[in-house]
Amino acid sequence: MRHQVVIVGAGPAGLMLGRLLELAGIDAVILERKSADYVLGRIRAGVLEQGTVALMERARAGRRMNAEGLIHHGVELSFDGDSHRIDFSTLIDKQVMVYGQTEVTRDLMDIREGTTIYEAEDVDLHDFDGRPWVSYRKDGQTHRIDCDFIAGCDGYHGVARQSVPQQALTTFERVYPFGWLGVLVDKPPVADELIYAHHERGFALCSQRSKTRSRYYVQVPADEQAAAWSDDRFWDELRARLDPATAESLQTGPSIEKSVAPLRSFVAEPLRFGRLFLAGDAAHIVPPTGAKGLNLAMRDVAALADALIEHFTGRSAAGIDAYSAMVLGRIWKAERFSWWMTSLLHTFPETGAFGRRIQRAEFDYLTGSRAAQQSLAENYTGVVTWGDEGSSEALSRSRVA
Amino acid sequence: MRHQVVIVGAGPAGLMLGRLLELAGIDAVILERKSADYVLGRIRAGVLEQGTVALMERARAGRRMNAEGLIHHGVELSFDGDSHRIDFSTLIDKQVMVYGQTEVTRDLMDIREGTTIYEAEDVDLHDFDGRPWVSYRKDGQTHRIDCDFIAGCDGYHGVARQSVPQQALTTFERVYPFGWLGVLVDKPPVADELIYAHHERGFALCSQRSKTRSRYYVQVPADEQAAAWSDDRFWDELRARLDPATAESLQTGPSIEKSVAPLRSFVAEPLRFGRLFLAGDAAHIVPPTGAKGLNLAMRDVAALADALIEHFTGRSAAGIDAYSAMVLGRIWKAERFSWWMTSLLHTFPETGAFGRRIQRAEFDYLTGSRAAQQSLAENYTGVVTWGDEGSSEALSRSRVA
Repeated sequence: MRHQVVIVGAGPAGLMLGRLLELAGIDAVILERKSADYVLGRIRAGVLEQGTVALMERARAGRRMNAEGLIHHGVELSFDGDSHRIDFSTLIDKQVMVYGQTEVTRDLMDIREGTTIYEAEDVDLHDFDGRPWVSYRKDGQTHRIDCDFIAGCDGYHGVARQSVPQQALTTFERVYPFGWLGVLVDKPPVADELIYAHHERGFALCSQRSKTRSRYYVQVPADEQAAAWSDDRFWDELRARLDPATAESLQTGPSIEKSVAPLRSFVAEPLRFGRLFLAGDAAHIVPPTGAKGLNLAMRDVAALADALIEHFTGRSAAGIDAYSAMVLGRIWKAERFSWWMTSLLHTFPETGAFGRRIQRAEFDYLTGSRAAQQSLAENYTGVVTWGDEGSSEALSRSRVA
Repeated sequence: MRHQVVIVGAGPAGLMLGRLLELAGIDAVILERKSADYVLGRIRAGVLEQGTVALMERARAGRRMNAEGLIHHGVELSFDGDSHRIDFSTLIDKQVMVYGQTEVTRDLMDIREGTTIYEAEDVDLHDFDGRPWVSYRKDGQTHRIDCDFIAGCDGYHGVARQSVPQQALTTFERVYPFGWLGVLVDKPPVADELIYAHHERGFALCSQRSKTRSRYYVQVPADEQAAAWSDDRFWDELRARLDPATAESLQTGPSIEKSVAPLRSFVAEPLRFGRLFLAGDAAHIVPPTGAKGLNLAMRDVAALADALIEHFTGRSAAGIDAYSAMVLGRIWKAERFSWWMTSLLHTFPETGAFGRRIQRAEFDYLTGSRAAQQSLAENYTGVVTWGDEGSSEALSRSRVA
């Protein structure tokens, strides 16, 4: 079997890359270790930058997103119960869209025309310094696909980055001493927009997937077990970290999903090894504070698609040669912002009293400075990460509305 | 002997407080442990915020400052040799003035009409919860001054803060694992404006006191001895941390002064204990990165002078009651900024590779974002700290020129 590109991983990054390539007439197959249902069952982030929205439209996968996605014009920050709204629209005339990553994945799955091979076991990458090929097992048979390029979109634990010789890779990492305990519930969100709350008991986040489905988080120790948290315990803890008015209007219910996610900052360099590329979580992890993970992955594959299209149709290797350095610049900016927002909003056992006062001073400075708020807004909405892509249709409409 | 106010410490904070009080007809004596010559021999910072310049004018001590001070419209930041200028004037229409702290002290000394008692030994503060009095020894005699209020402007190691019962005081502290080795030299500065340089060998600062006197610093371990550094070793190390063009144009010469200053963040709370007030370094220390120390002290004593004037002439205790909370808000903002600028520009043994990349990402973000540069500029020039005081004469003139 032969394809021009083998994409490893059918998460949103792999599916988007496959879609952008097929729209350009490039033949790409996707290999996914898990089943389609398993992939759709993963609960992930839900805040799309304008650039991600525009990319979904470029992929012609934006119809449901534009119908169902919720435009958010700001976020609320709270510190020990004092609240301040960061108004993206007023500050920098930008917005974000709340639309679950699961829905992004589903839309990209639905529109895909090329082949996705699910439940491909023992995926192995070969000879990506020369003539690359990929082997895998499916239904007890071993298969081989020859290709021109391999794109590793298979996440932090995937095979792609692990296939790179260790000496060729430099990694940068920070593991935070806490995680997020998340609960999904079929109740309307407590507020129209997201609330990021610093509290002396720990961070809390009121997020949402739709007008009827909410996602809430509380900071817990990194080794905490979700099973130790009854729904009641979770709601009590969440309420304790919100300002009283918000806590009172919280609508609770039985959790649909409850899990602990660790917080990690991670970057691998470079992101190209001969004819193998890394993109998305295979290349970098951000802590979820600031919602950069999915958006950064989408930016990677947009750049990678353009580089591959330039190779196959323009007969130029310039894009391919520039890929790693270009996306790494953006990745580090998003890493910085995610690290900063995590540092501001969480309690750190090791910082002590001085550190907590610095966090408070940062919050007080932020709420009093237009420049500081603009800086937060441009990072959160992704202006800095995305550059000057054209405005998306839906977000432009929302400005008029 | 009786005075309305006893000020402990004849540094710039104590002298400014004394001057503002005497202009309002309030009788204040200053006690200083050292001699006037010793005080003038201390080498300190030299960047005045607009608010400090305006305060010098309010004290009618601004004539020489306005004649000799150098208006700076920006600073240069450099990271591993890549340079970027932060242009205060363009970004936020503000400037700073380079004028040595020693000169500020001299001008305030020269204009003072009230009594300053130098070489006052064993200063001791009594009964500041009731009817305060201060004792000291001078020329072998013990003296007593009764007063209404005591102002502790005697620095970090002074007696004022140490006189407060420990349980009444909360302190916040961070000691950095490095210091600044500084050299004063009678040579023109290497650049018109200050250069703050992050280098993998450590931080360096090119500062100045005048067009013919320069002050240079390099980051060294906290326990470093200045004696271990010959002038040649210092100049070699400084050059190695600057971009090549700057290093080449550096004019070196024999050092007039060479010393290591530790870097520390420190805040005491509250700043009022009955009839005793703390101001300046007695209350808080910032690391010198960002030049906030003197300016913050000046802001404290301006607020304290207003509070005391309100008490003596307006018969209202409102200012006195509000003093601590009011200045602490500003102090923490300056602490945050000084901590941030220190964190960005120094090498930290403990942060590792991820931390260094985050520093670089911060520099890259800063140099590409107007909002981030405005935030730096407003903190550096002191807008955030000073609020809406009227523009100073000299700085207003400079804008027209």
